[in-house]
This record gives sequence, structure tokens and C-alpha cells, in this order.
Amino acid sequence: MSFQQLGLIGCGLMGGSFALAVKRAGLVQKVLGFSPSPGSVQKALDMGVIDQAAKSAAQAVQGSDLVLLALPVAATQATMALIRPALDSTTLVMDVGSSKTDVVAAAQVGLQDRMGQFVPAHPIAGKEVSGVQFADAQLYAQQQVILTPIEATTALFLQRAQDLWLGLGCQVKLMSPQDHDAAFAAVSHLPHLLAFAFMNSLSAQVKGPDFLALAGPGFRDFTRIAASDPHMWRDILIANAQEVRAQSKYFQQQLQALELALNQALSTGESEGLMKLIEQASSQRAGWTMGSTAS
Amino acid sequence: MSFQQLGLIGCGLMGGSFALAVKRAGLVQKVLGFSPSPGSVQKALDMGVIDQAAKSAAQAVQGSDLVLLALPVAATQATMALIRPALDSTTLVMDVGSSKTDVVAAAQVGLQDRMGQFVPAHPIAGKEVSGVQFADAQLYAQQQVILTPIEATTALFLQRAQDLWLGLGCQVKLMSPQDHDAAFAAVSHLPHLLAFAFMNSLSAQVKGPDFLALAGPGFRDFTRIAASDPHMWRDILIANAQEVRAQSKYFQQQLQALELALNQALSTGESEGLMKLIEQASSQRAGWTMGSTAS
Repeated sequence: MSFQQLGLIGCGLMGGSFALAVKRAGLVQKVLGFSPSPGSVQKALDMGVIDQAAKSAAQAVQGSDLVLLALPVAATQATMALIRPALDSTTLVMDVGSSKTDVVAAAQVGLQDRMGQFVPAHPIAGKEVSGVQFADAQLYAQQQVILTPIEATTALFLQRAQDLWLGLGCQVKLMSPQDHDAAFAAVSHLPHLLAFAFMNSLSAQVKGPDFLALAGPGFRDFTRIAASDPHMWRDILIANAQEVRAQSKYFQQQLQALELALNQALSTGESEGLMKLIEQASSQRAGWTMGSTAS
Repeated sequence: MSFQQLGLIGCGLMGGSFALAVKRAGLVQKVLGFSPSPGSVQKALDMGVIDQAAKSAAQAVQGSDLVLLALPVAATQATMALIRPALDSTTLVMDVGSSKTDVVAAAQVGLQDRMGQFVPAHPIAGKEVSGVQFADAQLYAQQQVILTPIEATTALFLQRAQDLWLGLGCQVKLMSPQDHDAAFAAVSHLPHLLAFAFMNSLSAQVKGPDFLALAGPGFRDFTRIAASDPHMWRDILIANAQEVRAQSKYFQQQLQALELALNQALSTGESEGLMKLIEQASSQRAGWTMGSTAS
């Protein structure tokens, strides 16, 4: 399983890392890249992330037997509509978006009769920085990749997509777009929303800068995701708003339960309830390891 | 500035790391250790964290010119009352608790006329694991240490405490116990409460285990502090409940603001408000570095 040419649309952290990884793994001979940002294209060329620059998304698709959309998810539909006329019927198309039901809906409008060639993908990897200058051939290695095929997805293209990600050293899981979005609202999108809110709660206080100067390693790790790319996260939160709001409600119920238990400990001296809630959280987290397989 | 003997009361991660660090730095000749847990004492002896085991907290103090209390903060008052009769008037006493107004209040009752020898200390370092087996001579190196002297604190002892932590490679800051607790409610205690609530919100859902199996590096870092020691964190949250609740209110206001902006983006298509809130959080976090100095 290898490809002649990758048409990379979007030369950022995710797309750039993919291009470096497939070239290093010998899975792609040549990378033709397009980005709406001329600066990113130049950097991608300079870094050897892409071999040649395309003048448009449609041009990046010409002669490519593999196409990766690595753009903010809100740009999916328009970009797909632009590339559809230039798409060969044997070309595998994928994305790397963090939300999937919206991407599938956008693809249905944008790709129309070419929908069978599209395999929606979400590699569970990233950094809190963005831009091709942070591209890393190892970003996806040993990480999970979720593919969310729909009824229209052709088995042949799905198989090619699986083989490609396996070839990069990834664990591949198949899920419906709906199940994907429910799960990632819980373990990724809500944590980002909470980290944003937490950072803003410090900014809103006069003493915020003094507080921040005292913060240590716990704060550093808890808030790392708050530095993520604002455009990308605005799009994800909007795309998956319903699930995110549902998860936020679950969270707020548990925060309230902890605060009630804290109040009870203060008013009655009885801290067993608070202890149990903290123990549950602590043992759940201590028992978790990344990439463990769901039952 | 060096000491003959450290009396270590509490042989866990924090106390054990301190003992290893002061010995390695040549600041202490001998460590006499006590823990209410016989298993911890044996492990501390086996690891060379302590040189000799004491049978009681009071015994650990005898002949010690430096005493460190590294116990859950709730044990402070009783332990200080036990050691006070055995304390030499030249012995520096410190703690390593994450909350300070409660420790100072406990010390006033427990140490009484020996209060001048006590320098409340909070090294901003830790791990999500607990126990002497994780003790690390480098835990405090390059980290900040907050000392919170009160009016009763003798200048001589404060100077000794400063010199000692500087000798371990720490940055030392002086604050009032009240300012300390307000700041750490904001940058440490609330994040722990939020991480506990978030983990519990996953446990409360039938699909929680499936969700957890999909979680990636962002989740890993965001929730690391949720695995912290439950006893220690129950005590801290109770000790600093008022400030923590105030910070939780600020946080909930900001979460609500983000959700309102998200709703507005969905209902009107106008996502500028949401974008601004995320940009503010992102730039604030991207501009933060650990150990930066407050204005």
C-alpha cells in the first residue's frame, strides 16, 4: 500500500506532520501542497514538508491518488466543492478534523457523487501550538486514529485508509460519526472549554497576574490545552455544540456535588462524603492509561 | 548555613524528597525520621531517605536543629503540640503544606511560645503520585517556594529558612498567609477541584469507560492532577474552602459566558464573541511561563 502523490490542502501542524510521516514511512512518493496562507506554503517548502506548491486546492488534487484536507473544519464544504471536479475516481480523500458529524454533512454537500472515496479521520494527536514550523514526523506514531465511515463509504477506500494509518504506526478504530462526537465532546472538547473558562476566570481578576506568577507544574499541565488554536477550537465547539453542552451539564452537576460535600464538611465536620468523591476521581484517573482499549 | 540533624515528621513524597535534597546539597548531616506508617519508615530507611527511625514525632525532634513537618495539613496542630516540649529554642521548624492560614492557626495553638521558630513554607512542586517510593532529590530544584511569615516569626529563623531553600536551588518568595491562600485557591486548589469534578462526570456516564479509552494527550495533561492524594486534597479544600468557593464562582461565570457565546454563535451565526473569549484564554496561556515574576 503506497501512493504516488499526496495532495495536501492546508499546510499547518496536522497536515505538515502527516506529510513528513508518510514520506518518512515511504508511503508517498511526492507531496503537492496548498495553503490559503502563502507564508505557510513557503515554510512548508523550506522545511521539505511539501515538494511542490499548488496554486489552488483544485490544483493540489490533480494527479494525486491521496488527498488530505487539514484545514479548520468550517472550511470543509467549500474546499470539497472546489476540488470535486478535479478528483480522480481512484483518489482516497481524508480529513483530520476533531469533529465528524459536521464534516460528514459538509462532505455530502461538497463531494456529492464522490462521497464513497471519502474516509473521515481523526488522529488523536496534537500540540498546543499551531503552524507548519511545529510539524513533526512522529506526531501520529503510536497514537489512536478514529475513522468514521458512513453507509456511502466504499469498502476499498476504507481499507486503504486503515492500511495507511497502520503504516504510520497508529492504532485504528472505526466508529460512527455520532459516537465519535459524543466521545470527544466528553474527553477533549469539554476539557478545552473548561480550560478556556479557567484561564478567563484568572484574567477577570485584578490580582490575576500575581496569581499566574505563582502557578506551578499542576497549573501548567491543567491549562496546556487552553493555548490551542482559537480558530480551530471555535469551529470544533460550534460543530459539536450539542454534545459539548450535554457534557458541560454532567460536569457542572459533579462540581456542584463536590461543593455540597465541601460545605457539609465545613458545617458538620463530616468529611467522608467529600473524601469519597475525591477518591473516586483519583482512582479513576490513576487507573487510566492512554490508548487503553474500550470494552 | 548548614544543619546537624533534620527531624523529619512524615516520610512521604514531599518529606522524603526534602530529606534527599538537603543531604545531597550537604545542608544536613543526618536525618532522623518519623512516620505514623511503619511501612513508610522502613521504605525510607531502605532508600536512604532517613538515616535513623524515630519512635515518635517528639523523638524525631530531639537533637534536631531543623524540623520539617510533611504531614497532611489537618495533622499540624496535634503534631506541633506533641513536639513542642522536646523542641530546642534554636531549632528551625517548617512545614510544606499547600494551605497556610490554617497551618498558621494550628501552629499558634500547637507551638504557643515557640511560634517564633516556625516558618510556614509551601514549595510549589509535587507529583500526582504519593509515597516515599517516589521521593526525588530534584523535586524542589528550580521551583518556587513561598514562605509566609507572620508577626511572631523571628527574623533570624526566617533568614535561615530562606538560605536553606536557596541552597536547594529554589526561588524564594515571601507572602502573607492570606495572600498565599487566595493565590493558590486560584492557580492550584480550584484546578484540582475542577479536575476531580471532570473525572467524576465521566464516571457518572454509562459510556464513561468507552470515552476514557479514546482519550489522548490533552486529556492526559488536563486530568493529571485528579490522581493526586485524596486525603491531602480533602484537607486542603477544607482548609481553604472560602477562597476555593470564591474562585469556583469566578470560573462558573466564565464558563457561562463561553456557553452563552456558543449559543449565540449557533442561533445567529455570529461567532465573534466566542472567538474573542477563546483568543483571550489562548493568548493568556501562551504568554505564561512557569516561575515568571509577578509585577
